[in-house]
Amino acid sequence: MAVAIKISTRGRSEMVDITALVKKELDNSGKADGMCLVYIPHTTAGVTINEGADPDVKSDILAALSEMVPATGNYRHAEGNSDSHIKAALVGSSVVIPIQNAKLLLGTWQSIFFCEFDGPRSRSALIQFI
Amino acid sequence: MAVAIKISTRGRSEMVDITALVKKELDNSGKADGMCLVYIPHTTAGVTINEGADPDVKSDILAALSEMVPATGNYRHAEGNSDSHIKAALVGSSVVIPIQNAKLLLGTWQSIFFCEFDGPRSRSALIQFI
Amino acid sequence: MAVAIKISTRGRSEMVDITALVKKELDNSGKADGMCLVYIPHTTAGVTINEGADPDVKSDILAALSEMVPATGNYRHAEGNSDSHIKAALVGSSVVIPIQNAKLLLGTWQSIFFCEFDGPRSRSALIQFI
Repeated sequence: MAVAIKISTRGRSEMVDITALVKKELDNSGKADGMCLVYIPHTTAGVTINEGADPDVKSDILAALSEMVPATGNYRHAEGNSDSHIKAALVGSSVVIPIQNAKLLLGTWQSIFFCEFDGPRSRSALIQFI
Repeated sequence: MAVAIKISTRGRSEMVDITALVKKELDNSGKADGMCLVYIPHTTAGVTINEGADPDVKSDILAALSEMVPATGNYRHAEGNSDSHIKAALVGSSVVIPIQNAKLLLGTWQSIFFCEFDGPRSRSALIQFI
Repeated sequence: MAVAIKISTRGRSEMVDITALVKKELDNSGKADGMCLVYIPHTTAGVTINEGADPDVKSDILAALSEMVPATGNYRHAEGNSDSHIKAALVGSSVVIPIQNAKLLLGTWQSIFFCEFDGPRSRSALIQFI
């Protein structure tokens, strides 16, 4: 069964660390072994795993994406958020993490980030254990 | 068991909405809960999830990828499709979607797209339910 | 259960073909059907699936990533490897591959590559079968 967690974003582009929320759902599930799927049901947001210790890393990732995909350009989609859709395609809408002994096997420096590319909005992420 | 679905692409770069085909395989499988893996067994194509309502979104995604990864450049691979391999690496070769009550938990605006980067070709996508 | 495989990288940026190592773990596991998760527990490395036959393809992918994400720039993270984190976010930290009849359903030209973006280092990849 998938569980939805709620995320409120504050900026147009933002990486929100959801690791603690995912761990809490793992604890609730009682799963000891398997895989954890984090799935983003939005088309202008994504999910990625990267360094959580230094907040400058997420600033650098967001800045690099904005340089690669400018907010304004020769876009056809008329809603002014083509860049958001493109960034979502680059980052991806799901991550899968192994579980062992009831723990996510994240590396020492890894955190799970919800990636907002067209906020601020009320968003959700679906968490599922297999 | 994985099921192969066939896709005929028409352009060099093209995003083909395969959501209905994936849903049909889910119906055929009789699965009620779990995960759906969509896997692309090609090195110059990929798969992504993004907006299906406005076709301009896929045009913008393809155009942005072509701007980031030019078709011609100082490439070493001699087959003239280095850009296709690079785009496939950026977009990725698999997506995983949660299933609940025999439905894919896609967001309201989400569609699953086979991404052709070196067409036109006869392609396939592997669909597997767990 | 997840198994860790060890990878020693030699350059700052390098794609290491780990297909044979993953196949060996599949053989050891005795799994006949399901999915194979390859998960990278690092924040400056990733994993991708692409052509293994011509080594020029991986050179082209690495060169394109370095052009899109320069090694030096207006970065905030003070460790000199912001580009490595950004490349890891673009490539991703996991791939999932279907298994059938005790074989990975990789396409004819596909290999699994550990992507080092801040080497040389001693690294690992986690392999899990479901």
